[in-house]
Amino acid sequence: MIDRANRAYHVWRKVSVQDRAGILVESLERVKARFFEIAYATMHTTGQGYMMAFQASGPHAADRALEAIAAGYEELNRFPAAALWDKPMGKFNIQLNKEWRAVPKGISLVIGCSTFPTWNTVPGLYASLITGNPVIVKPHPGAILPIAIVVAEIQNVLKENNLDTNICQLAPDTYSKMITKELAEHPDVKLIDFTGNSAFGSYLEALPGKTTFTEKTGVNSVIIDSVEDADKVAANLAFSVSLYSGQMCTAPQNFFISETGIKTANGIISFDEFAQKVVDNVNSLVDNPKAGPFVLGTVQNKKTCDRVAEAEKLPGKVWLKSRTIANPQFANARTTTPVVVEIDPAQKDIFSKELFGPIALLIKTKNTDQSIELAQQLARQHGAISCGAYTTDASMREKIADAMALAATPVSFNLTGGIYMNQNAGFSDFHVTGGNPAGNASFTNPEYVIKRFTWVGHREPVKAV
Amino acid sequence: MIDRANRAYHVWRKVSVQDRAGILVESLERVKARFFEIAYATMHTTGQGYMMAFQASGPHAADRALEAIAAGYEELNRFPAAALWDKPMGKFNIQLNKEWRAVPKGISLVIGCSTFPTWNTVPGLYASLITGNPVIVKPHPGAILPIAIVVAEIQNVLKENNLDTNICQLAPDTYSKMITKELAEHPDVKLIDFTGNSAFGSYLEALPGKTTFTEKTGVNSVIIDSVEDADKVAANLAFSVSLYSGQMCTAPQNFFISETGIKTANGIISFDEFAQKVVDNVNSLVDNPKAGPFVLGTVQNKKTCDRVAEAEKLPGKVWLKSRTIANPQFANARTTTPVVVEIDPAQKDIFSKELFGPIALLIKTKNTDQSIELAQQLARQHGAISCGAYTTDASMREKIADAMALAATPVSFNLTGGIYMNQNAGFSDFHVTGGNPAGNASFTNPEYVIKRFTWVGHREPVKAV
Repeated sequence: MIDRANRAYHVWRKVSVQDRAGILVESLERVKARFFEIAYATMHTTGQGYMMAFQASGPHAADRALEAIAAGYEELNRFPAAALWDKPMGKFNIQLNKEWRAVPKGISLVIGCSTFPTWNTVPGLYASLITGNPVIVKPHPGAILPIAIVVAEIQNVLKENNLDTNICQLAPDTYSKMITKELAEHPDVKLIDFTGNSAFGSYLEALPGKTTFTEKTGVNSVIIDSVEDADKVAANLAFSVSLYSGQMCTAPQNFFISETGIKTANGIISFDEFAQKVVDNVNSLVDNPKAGPFVLGTVQNKKTCDRVAEAEKLPGKVWLKSRTIANPQFANARTTTPVVVEIDPAQKDIFSKELFGPIALLIKTKNTDQSIELAQQLARQHGAISCGAYTTDASMREKIADAMALAATPVSFNLTGGIYMNQNAGFSDFHVTGGNPAGNASFTNPEYVIKRFTWVGHREPVKAV
Repeated sequence: MIDRANRAYHVWRKVSVQDRAGILVESLERVKARFFEIAYATMHTTGQGYMMAFQASGPHAADRALEAIAAGYEELNRFPAAALWDKPMGKFNIQLNKEWRAVPKGISLVIGCSTFPTWNTVPGLYASLITGNPVIVKPHPGAILPIAIVVAEIQNVLKENNLDTNICQLAPDTYSKMITKELAEHPDVKLIDFTGNSAFGSYLEALPGKTTFTEKTGVNSVIIDSVEDADKVAANLAFSVSLYSGQMCTAPQNFFISETGIKTANGIISFDEFAQKVVDNVNSLVDNPKAGPFVLGTVQNKKTCDRVAEAEKLPGKVWLKSRTIANPQFANARTTTPVVVEIDPAQKDIFSKELFGPIALLIKTKNTDQSIELAQQLARQHGAISCGAYTTDASMREKIADAMALAATPVSFNLTGGIYMNQNAGFSDFHVTGGNPAGNASFTNPEYVIKRFTWVGHREPVKAV
């Protein structure tokens, strides 16, 4: 694969940016025609419900891919291909013809994850391709088909344009024989994109001689200070916790609520009252046969169920135990509903790690200032990809906005209704900022494409005519 | 210093980009009034001749600083501060107010070098400042005054604007008690800029939790295939070797010439004939009392003289021995003229390391293809910051341009007259590409400013009116 990619490198790097962009956009057109197939492939590999599988692996992933193409196209056209440099020297001028070339770095390895096999893979894939690098996609062995469809369509368009299909290769492996390290450590692999656990992400980041883009894990907080309508807030958060059974890097985990309660339009409601509202809203969601099974989806990895079961043994009041629910479409679906546990803020070791899955910890703080302090500290030390905050006070809003910005964590304020802190949009949300330990890169900060090539400028005196 | 910088951070990051840009541009206006003082300070600390000291430490350094301000200003204004996000959901629209903040990374440490104390320091200094980071400038203990003048003027403008002058601090040390490592390893230092030797640069790059920009050392080649006028070429190269006694990161070291000679407009001239022309041109330059002492300048570090003396013992024909010349301005000036030695291409260990100083190695290759291969290999394995090439053949020109671009090395083609491969201009030459071992950053690729801050986007539903 490395040999084939090395040969393809010298083909692909010589294709103009315009033609690369055309080919890649065309591949997305082809992928569009297979959105339904990709949706079902995603459901059956990741356990996502149909709606999320369609959206995340289909149009939203394509949004991200298009964003990467656009960002790369912009950067590659930022500087002129050639210019006349004219310097007055007194009695004469020195004139140089200058030209600039964007040189792709080399073989790009894009490592997929098990839960979002296309959404998390296509940004790096398309960013490397638009900037002229051949790509080897190494999917998670548990979620190959969705991204294989994308790679196939890219190869189809390459073939139609009489280009080497090895410009984009698929490198599937199996649980019993993983090939990721072997590929990543190969000296010819210059670029690595990775989504997954922090230990492996940090190992990749430390490999010398590589440019690495990682999305690792984080601990996401919700700060609840004051609200307009506590019921709407509880409903929104219950949905966020339940969505795809908490198997999203943006899912909330730690809910910081003051022991003095939450100011609302109808007076203060206590910590316990709010906790009960969250529990009630989770129950009504998961017990709604028209919503619960489809919002929760199923659990990709059995270890997640074990983690949820363990959470009930945490030292604190268990507000809601996890259950299984029946999925009307799939009799043998592995399901687990959210568990809600109250944790003392002093027990930082419990809530300062990611508990992947539908696990909500309610943490009773002294006041909102302590809530902010803890959320900021967690993000700085352990990473965070999202943050929810509820406040009706403008100065408190700015305090939260500033504190979390310093921890490089985007905040969704006062979300209610059909929009959730878990959701990150292409073209306007920088998914993973790259500024805290949750990852070193952002979809699609300009750096995300710039680091995939090198500007080299040659120059030569203008010939006297 | 760290405590003061931490306090200054929260002042400076809240100053608007417009105001930061205004303050920094104003500081350059003030620096302009001190260009002559900076020039003399540079001569007396680095040994540069007056002309270079004035140009490099004065207007050219200010060009670089202005370029960093402009690049930062552009990046910080690339995305809107706020936007309305409007998503049709069928029967209703979801509307969010989104806002984006550029969050500076934190304390920036800028480590100066002994030979170009302002030119190599101001890009990182101004790039960190425009993006909102407080800076600690740690000059080389042998070249403090030139950059101290710049820091003083920045502080003057900060003071006039009622801002904390600790936004930009000078941290001088002495040879007997260096403080660089202590500063670099401090956990609050988030950004490091460095120009200097590869060993220390690589140590800095490997420090965890830092964003590091390095310019280290390289091995620069000249490929001579064919020329219009061999005398003009030899004169140009003799000047390049002699300029500031080869103490430039862009100075040529390895001259690859085919054993079959060099095609010229007047027929082929042999390797030996060309070698003699280089020798003659060096001699006539250094022996010209109106040019030699001022072009050569003096030698900053005695070790450079030792290295030149050692070069005469290299296993190959010594075409020209080094001498000392008198400097009419400074009786005790430490001078050493270029040494020219012929080296066999098989003795790669000799020419594959940087021999800092006025040392020219003439390497007799089989043909130009071997010359290109060696120059590319050296740049890839050991780094290169510049490359000179002479060819009158268009296809050979493209071969060289492509091969060296793949090694991330800019090529100056066919330079004769008053322009030299050593010179890199602001705003159009990406000084150090960042794509080979000579450094991981480029003045002023967009990445050079983008990596100094993090984009964080907050969002909130639009309130129903």
